[in-house]
Amino acid sequence: MALDGRIAGHGIGALKDGKPPDETDNANYFCEYAFLYHQMDMLEDEPRTGAYFNAITWNPESFKDKVVLDVGAGTCILSMFAAKAGAKEVFAVEATDMAVRSRKLVQAQGLSHIIKVLQGTVETVTLPSMVDVIISEWMGYFLLRESMLDSVLIARDRFLKPGGALFPSHATLFLAPVGSAKACREKQQTFDGERQHFDNFNCTMMQYYGTDFSCMQEEFLEEQRKYYLQTGMFVNLAPKQLAGSGSPVLEIDLSTITLQDLKDSAKPLRCCMRISRDSQLEGFTGYFNVTFRGSTQNPVKEVVELTTAPTTKTATHWGQQLFGFFPPLQAKNEDVLECQLFIKRQKKNHRLLQLDSAFELCRESNGKRFVCQKREDTWYVD
Amino acid sequence: MALDGRIAGHGIGALKDGKPPDETDNANYFCEYAFLYHQMDMLEDEPRTGAYFNAITWNPESFKDKVVLDVGAGTCILSMFAAKAGAKEVFAVEATDMAVRSRKLVQAQGLSHIIKVLQGTVETVTLPSMVDVIISEWMGYFLLRESMLDSVLIARDRFLKPGGALFPSHATLFLAPVGSAKACREKQQTFDGERQHFDNFNCTMMQYYGTDFSCMQEEFLEEQRKYYLQTGMFVNLAPKQLAGSGSPVLEIDLSTITLQDLKDSAKPLRCCMRISRDSQLEGFTGYFNVTFRGSTQNPVKEVVELTTAPTTKTATHWGQQLFGFFPPLQAKNEDVLECQLFIKRQKKNHRLLQLDSAFELCRESNGKRFVCQKREDTWYVD
Repeated sequence: MALDGRIAGHGIGALKDGKPPDETDNANYFCEYAFLYHQMDMLEDEPRTGAYFNAITWNPESFKDKVVLDVGAGTCILSMFAAKAGAKEVFAVEATDMAVRSRKLVQAQGLSHIIKVLQGTVETVTLPSMVDVIISEWMGYFLLRESMLDSVLIARDRFLKPGGALFPSHATLFLAPVGSAKACREKQQTFDGERQHFDNFNCTMMQYYGTDFSCMQEEFLEEQRKYYLQTGMFVNLAPKQLAGSGSPVLEIDLSTITLQDLKDSAKPLRCCMRISRDSQLEGFTGYFNVTFRGSTQNPVKEVVELTTAPTTKTATHWGQQLFGFFPPLQAKNEDVLECQLFIKRQKKNHRLLQLDSAFELCRESNGKRFVCQKREDTWYVD
Repeated sequence: MALDGRIAGHGIGALKDGKPPDETDNANYFCEYAFLYHQMDMLEDEPRTGAYFNAITWNPESFKDKVVLDVGAGTCILSMFAAKAGAKEVFAVEATDMAVRSRKLVQAQGLSHIIKVLQGTVETVTLPSMVDVIISEWMGYFLLRESMLDSVLIARDRFLKPGGALFPSHATLFLAPVGSAKACREKQQTFDGERQHFDNFNCTMMQYYGTDFSCMQEEFLEEQRKYYLQTGMFVNLAPKQLAGSGSPVLEIDLSTITLQDLKDSAKPLRCCMRISRDSQLEGFTGYFNVTFRGSTQNPVKEVVELTTAPTTKTATHWGQQLFGFFPPLQAKNEDVLECQLFIKRQKKNHRLLQLDSAFELCRESNGKRFVCQKREDTWYVD
């Protein structure tokens, strides 16, 4: 297992709380998780909480008498599931003040003898021993937003015994072509309206204040493009809005991926989306699955999967991320939409994403394959 | 003039950009101002921009051949007004990257020989001379949110010549009793709904996951009270919604107030609001005026005032802040609503406010005055 510059076992000693997150990272990110309101929002996501419940309680042999680490424990709900599944000891690491509340919750369930809540970042806590299992709900929008997987991998490299299991063990990011999406059309209209807005603004500035803002027009439209038009939208798509099935663009085995792999964007990710009907493509969507398989050495008995794909059933709180093609592409049944994608972190905030993409819509005609439309765009997951 | 621990003239030397803001303060606060979209929103506020335009251009004798400092210049609109009013030299200090754009704007107006844009916080720039006038648009919601007046006072103490003028020169914060406000009733209903929400949540957690969250109920409701019910709402009230006229609770003379005065909350502010009809009081509102009078030594010819009071005319982008009485008070014509108010800064973010208040609704009966209702509450301006 890659150690990413750390020494396995570093961080082992007397059980000890860690340090709070960096102040800016806290303001940008962690502070949100200190609210019960936000925790409840996640807990009430039935596909999410239910998948973890099933993955843990349907596989008691993976937890019985095991030592477990919960990374970013929040209310300790996953720790409690692990305790109920027979874990001998659970270390629940939570950076925010939610740790104070989760101690109360753990006590109220009569589980304080099993679950030890540690306040601090997992990068800075000290545990008394290595662990058999790491559980964590680290997924953000478009799978990787929030960059919390970094912390899980660091926890793995610091604390997981060889052959130990990660819950979830695998994650897959999918892209799918979107046929019709009102949200994309509305976004284009609003963006177009901003051109007129700027003209009106500049007229007013000239007329009333004798000041000419026209040299800012291009910068304003560029700002609107970057921070509005080209940002991903939270949506809950219905399957019928897709113009073809989803295609995996990134497959992660949590037991082997390194921090370096995760941050390295030297090579593009690739996928091919098969179009299944004549359709406009108003955009594409990103969503993910995670799977609970245990480890190679200790596989689970019952594999559980959590998906955030478009559904007619209960949607998850992740929804899907929708990115528009402006203007839409014109696709035909049996076309293939090929994508090359770089997933980068935003410079201003490493927990947000920048997607550099190149799409080619490919078609076969008289036995020959040709590219009929191309798009290169940068998107933001804010 | 109080120097607040600084030496007058400190910061005088060769013209020099300052330092960027502290990273957390930038994430919490400054970053917003780097967007043209946000700048346009403020520029398009006609009462705001118009008041500054009038205050400056109607008083050319206050600017003719003067050296001017613009604190938090944004797009440099105020600097341009000052240049047009005849200023000899304007130092426009802007901490965000908007400074890069404002240099372009200044150049496009042919004013680069007058306006010098400095990027950095006003606490860290170096100017070649003291200045005759400081112009700044520093007001936030409830006048003091954003705590930007701090920077204006520091600029005053570092750079303003004795007898120099501040634009605006005076500011007044008013409180007024609100009779009917749908927003308050809706807020109470939503808050009441959260009690049921928690019960449903806890039922689900018990039923599906065997976990009892009832020990969190009080904390959840407390969180909802603090971060929802007791936070100020942005509103545009109509004058008819007031149950009496506004009363000044804080009057600031920018030429004499010290940073210490501004931060010191040892003594409560006080005001008396006269109720002018039999009415429920569903809440109270806070809004402000600023006035441009110049300095005692150099008064303006034309006094201009900018108000954010409830109006039937064009509203400002500040609107008013509305705070609910939960439940409402029952007032009668000629009652007096007395208020004691501490305006504090929030511990987690010094740019946000905490208001500790005590209200007494006083009535005269048979020539005797008595307190018929009391309220003590903490509010937040987030």
